[in-house]
Amino acid sequence: MRAVQIQTTAELDQLVVTDWPKPTPGPNQVLIQTHAAGVNRPDLVQRRGLYPPPPGASPILGLEVAGSVAAIGSAVTKVEVGDSVCALVTGGGYAEYCLASACCCLPIPRGFSFTQAAALPETFFTVWSNVFDRARLQAGESLLVHGGSSGIGTTAIQLAKAFGARAIATAGSDEKCRRCLELGADLAVNYRQQDFVEAVLDFTGGKGVNVILDMVGGDYLPRNLKSLASDGRLMQIGIQQGSKAEINLAALLMKRLTLAGSTLRSRSDEFKANIAEQLREKVWPLLASGQVKPVIDSVFPLAEADQAHRLMESSQHIGKIILEL
Amino acid sequence: MRAVQIQTTAELDQLVVTDWPKPTPGPNQVLIQTHAAGVNRPDLVQRRGLYPPPPGASPILGLEVAGSVAAIGSAVTKVEVGDSVCALVTGGGYAEYCLASACCCLPIPRGFSFTQAAALPETFFTVWSNVFDRARLQAGESLLVHGGSSGIGTTAIQLAKAFGARAIATAGSDEKCRRCLELGADLAVNYRQQDFVEAVLDFTGGKGVNVILDMVGGDYLPRNLKSLASDGRLMQIGIQQGSKAEINLAALLMKRLTLAGSTLRSRSDEFKANIAEQLREKVWPLLASGQVKPVIDSVFPLAEADQAHRLMESSQHIGKIILEL
Repeated sequence: MRAVQIQTTAELDQLVVTDWPKPTPGPNQVLIQTHAAGVNRPDLVQRRGLYPPPPGASPILGLEVAGSVAAIGSAVTKVEVGDSVCALVTGGGYAEYCLASACCCLPIPRGFSFTQAAALPETFFTVWSNVFDRARLQAGESLLVHGGSSGIGTTAIQLAKAFGARAIATAGSDEKCRRCLELGADLAVNYRQQDFVEAVLDFTGGKGVNVILDMVGGDYLPRNLKSLASDGRLMQIGIQQGSKAEINLAALLMKRLTLAGSTLRSRSDEFKANIAEQLREKVWPLLASGQVKPVIDSVFPLAEADQAHRLMESSQHIGKIILEL
Repeated sequence: MRAVQIQTTAELDQLVVTDWPKPTPGPNQVLIQTHAAGVNRPDLVQRRGLYPPPPGASPILGLEVAGSVAAIGSAVTKVEVGDSVCALVTGGGYAEYCLASACCCLPIPRGFSFTQAAALPETFFTVWSNVFDRARLQAGESLLVHGGSSGIGTTAIQLAKAFGARAIATAGSDEKCRRCLELGADLAVNYRQQDFVEAVLDFTGGKGVNVILDMVGGDYLPRNLKSLASDGRLMQIGIQQGSKAEINLAALLMKRLTLAGSTLRSRSDEFKANIAEQLREKVWPLLASGQVKPVIDSVFPLAEADQAHRLMESSQHIGKIILEL
């Protein structure tokens, strides 16, 4: 089958399409003929050798796909050959065929193309598991999401609003902030022009927000803690600005804060199955009705995966970048 | 009524018994004639002016009492005049009469003296709310508690063991470590002689513990994170070694850790009522049967509150220090 591989020379590394053995599903796996695959920031980190695939995962890049089920493992009962699905995978998305745990497959929402469906798994699993399942954002509460115009950001804004919470987003340009507001954000802060702590405290009457979803880390940590209300929850899902940070434990105690970190890929199948069930029940109807929509910035053929990565590295995009096969 | 007050002169501050108006219960409060009151480390901090009582709380020191109900507010239904109770209070314990929210009163466990019962509320509410309610320590998991010979420590060790978890304690002397082991700890680490991170990792086969209860803070934070297993929870309830700490967010992400801070006193009555219900149902039977016992180091008359504080400051005690009236 065709698959994208990292070709490293002395000068540069490139993503090129090569031949690769078609995988065979284990008992609880399905083989998906990939029609579209999402590009995610962890792919960029993995490409640099800093986010190795977990044991048993494909060495090929790609954490989400949409396509047709081509084969199923002996113990699979809920997915059938020929089904159209989108799936969260632990690797292997940038290829003609990709293995997925049956429990991480979801139906393509009504009216969605494969390309639109490939934009769903990574951000919807991430936002739901962190903001709703773990941090338990409630109607009437407020969410601050950094990187508001990213795939994660555009999903978090829409889901927060759909479930009755207020959404505040930060982004790096006025254009990006405008898109966040169009998606329903109650406030969008251009972090290059304004201190987000001040903006959040202003907007919340000095109280702060209840939940923060952050992928920045570094010196955002103390600023996030200042932006949280009493009993606030900070969900750390990335460390784009570095892992070393300073923390004021007195604030943690006095405001009764919770700080939790996670990466989605290392989660157990059991955990992901539970999130998939919640998504199917609570979020998939919102996608089918059009109340929540994946935001797609651009679509590249598989052979242009390298350009897709360069676009993501430039941070010029708004929403998801998708590869089509 | 007689009450302990802080008498400050140029050279020193002393705790002295003075006269103070007997309080009157509000609609949801009860007035307790105090027979015994627990001494807690936050009392020492409040005495230094660094832990001001929350709005509406008595300015008198003292966060837990046992005694007889002398009067009840108009809306109180579950407590009657004459009942023997122990109670978690937001202040006012070092006095002949003390107000408590009705929801924070618990019966005196069968066979307990007032002095023994006064040793219960602060540490049992703290350990239960953090280790069991919030961090959800499970049977088969492991707990690390620092200050293993303190009131909190001796309670945490016994409750962890009673609910089927393993308990590791740290303490500052071999004598204190010996007491921790007698109380059921599976391992006690003299932190003056051994690095607790190494001891914890050795004991858990390199995996680390599932839950940590810490009141030290400062440079314990990075060491606590190293001692935690994947999906571990660090409950921060004090910062005896300072509030400024460094945190490795990469470890937080990769191990999916949770770090949560709290102080008990600022919690809502609703929160405390919920913890009281859980204690009554799950822990009070263990006290009545003798499976779990409060550890009392020493008892002072109210007039010697100052000596009681000096003993706590010396950290020579093992278990609770109680004032009797």
